[in-house]
Amino acid sequence: MKIEDVDFFYLAMPEIRDIGDGSQDTLLVRVRADGLTGWGECEASPLVSIANWVTPKSHSACKSVRELVLGQTVDSPQDIAALSERVRAGGLDIAQTDHTFSGLEIALWDLLGKWEKQPVYQLLGYERAEPKTPYASQLFGDTPEETLQKARTSREQGYRAVKFGWGNYGRLSVEHDRDQVAAAREGLGSDGILMVDAGTVWVDDVAQAKARLPALHDNNVYWFEEPFIGDALSAYRELAEASDGVPIAGGEGAFNFHMARHLIHYGKISFVQIDTGRIGGIGPSKAVADYAAETGVRFVNHTFTTHLALSASLAPFAGMSQWPICEYPVEATRLAVNLYHNELARGDDGLVRLPETPGLGVEPNLDTIREYLVDVEIKVAGKTLYSTPDV
Amino acid sequence: MKIEDVDFFYLAMPEIRDIGDGSQDTLLVRVRADGLTGWGECEASPLVSIANWVTPKSHSACKSVRELVLGQTVDSPQDIAALSERVRAGGLDIAQTDHTFSGLEIALWDLLGKWEKQPVYQLLGYERAEPKTPYASQLFGDTPEETLQKARTSREQGYRAVKFGWGNYGRLSVEHDRDQVAAAREGLGSDGILMVDAGTVWVDDVAQAKARLPALHDNNVYWFEEPFIGDALSAYRELAEASDGVPIAGGEGAFNFHMARHLIHYGKISFVQIDTGRIGGIGPSKAVADYAAETGVRFVNHTFTTHLALSASLAPFAGMSQWPICEYPVEATRLAVNLYHNELARGDDGLVRLPETPGLGVEPNLDTIREYLVDVEIKVAGKTLYSTPDV
Repeated sequence: MKIEDVDFFYLAMPEIRDIGDGSQDTLLVRVRADGLTGWGECEASPLVSIANWVTPKSHSACKSVRELVLGQTVDSPQDIAALSERVRAGGLDIAQTDHTFSGLEIALWDLLGKWEKQPVYQLLGYERAEPKTPYASQLFGDTPEETLQKARTSREQGYRAVKFGWGNYGRLSVEHDRDQVAAAREGLGSDGILMVDAGTVWVDDVAQAKARLPALHDNNVYWFEEPFIGDALSAYRELAEASDGVPIAGGEGAFNFHMARHLIHYGKISFVQIDTGRIGGIGPSKAVADYAAETGVRFVNHTFTTHLALSASLAPFAGMSQWPICEYPVEATRLAVNLYHNELARGDDGLVRLPETPGLGVEPNLDTIREYLVDVEIKVAGKTLYSTPDV
Repeated sequence: MKIEDVDFFYLAMPEIRDIGDGSQDTLLVRVRADGLTGWGECEASPLVSIANWVTPKSHSACKSVRELVLGQTVDSPQDIAALSERVRAGGLDIAQTDHTFSGLEIALWDLLGKWEKQPVYQLLGYERAEPKTPYASQLFGDTPEETLQKARTSREQGYRAVKFGWGNYGRLSVEHDRDQVAAAREGLGSDGILMVDAGTVWVDDVAQAKARLPALHDNNVYWFEEPFIGDALSAYRELAEASDGVPIAGGEGAFNFHMARHLIHYGKISFVQIDTGRIGGIGPSKAVADYAAETGVRFVNHTFTTHLALSASLAPFAGMSQWPICEYPVEATRLAVNLYHNELARGDDGLVRLPETPGLGVEPNLDTIREYLVDVEIKVAGKTLYSTPDV
């Protein structure tokens, strides 16, 4: 299939709030070939990525994703890998390239699955997709009381596992954070699986993170996520070595396979969390899953947004029964919820299963695209390089 | 000084060639405050960075550089550092952020130097700027004969040190590359300083790089640059340990302090090469220089473009007499040459000195800006977020 028909759609809520909710906008990618349509999403700044899609060339290693992709042929997983390498090399000096390509790479897997009449997880070599236990991923309440209520609500909704993150965690005091975690544990019950996400709040300050360990230990936290930025490898390692049995998690900030590998190899994390919409797509995510399996680290998806993003992020570890947990968005905006048809709803047993339909098995609601579509026009030297395409 | 007046100018040659020449376009940044004007340049894709400057917010860690910078106050080097941290945190999920901020950060140092009536190197704590021996940085010829001629010409122009890179090096055969390096050595003479730049051609393939070592060793190469991409830390280390006295260099691809630190700490490089216009500006470059000094690694600038970029890239190691070599652009386009006034011309002794004027000491030629200015307009939801400003 020759790639000739690619469209980027910028969708956004009418109001974007200043909170850590990544589901307030999205960049949807559509690829059409041979009468089939593939869809993907970038977990990235839509306007910056659209500019990266169309930008004029600066030199031989600073080209638009469009120039590197259009006209190329994709008939196999190997072709997608070769295209990824072509984009990496030709877009080397544009830092945004992996983000921008992610959604397109995902759409190519969706397209290839439809063409081969196979779910994407089978194209990746898995015989079956294991059901996963979803953890309800949400922001901390502003107060411990609010967090307690949120945890109780999740439990009532049948979630065995819950993660709280961001909000004011790490920004006030050790005592406040202790109360937040204790409230989450109380609301969830002693048998629930509880994770805590610090949202990189301490950058690379190990002492701050260490001060939170006793409360995390006492509340039997399943993992302690992103105390530091993804590049702070020494800080991760130092904390891991002092963590007293609290597993450290990270990886959502990995913009390519190498960054995730470094967190595992040098940072000594216990869980690696990969966002397919950010790391360059499904191929590099699967490479991280394989490396994690080799090195005894546990892999888990990072997904705070839509069911398409979820399907794309589950495929890379779909067949790995040793990794039964998955992140599951429960606080997404109505844009993110209405964009698809709840294809990955929890089953009666509370578990999440990948669709068995060809491709990623998640199709956007065109009316929702029209409702939230943001009109964009980019003109350079009198020529329109991008204008919002028709749905 | 309150930052309220910032402009980005996209300048480009009429034709952009598909070669490794980063001087074919530039993104110039102007900051005005208190009647003073500071200038900086991003070594980055202009359109992608402009979109990053103006993009609507996606969430609390995915904001435009503009939103994070306008209205902030900068009265000291500490203020610039605090602003850098603010931009890093608020732009965490936009991979382009460091590239976009680099030019603005440089302009703020230029502005602060003018305000304090000091050259930037003094603001960085250096008492004096040491003269540096420039190496003529150029692309390999297409054939060994052409490379021989280029090396002879550089020698005739008084350069004691020359670097060849990119072109077809690494893309044909070990023998071809051997002949290229031997031709460069012959043209330069046995007493010249010769560097070779592989331009990341082998990605992370150590065997390919090792196969080139004998010719590099036999031709007494001063360093062997970027055999791999900047993230391939294990490959760098493996090559460094097998390099038989050929020093390995890298770092131009570092998009932040951490990436450069990793190449030193984990990759075991001998020379770290920093592009101030890409790593986030002068502050993080100085931090890399300090870290290099602590760890016994040699620091050198990466500059293939203009004299403003050169001044900004020399300042971070201006006072370090133990690092006497600097990269010096000799093949820049007429845009890059005419944009300034040859402020960092070599002296009669062949050495390069930083200007002693306040700030960076390099002022753009406004007529050149007008001549090469690219008209850009970005509209989102009916609102013009960016249009090319008046010079």
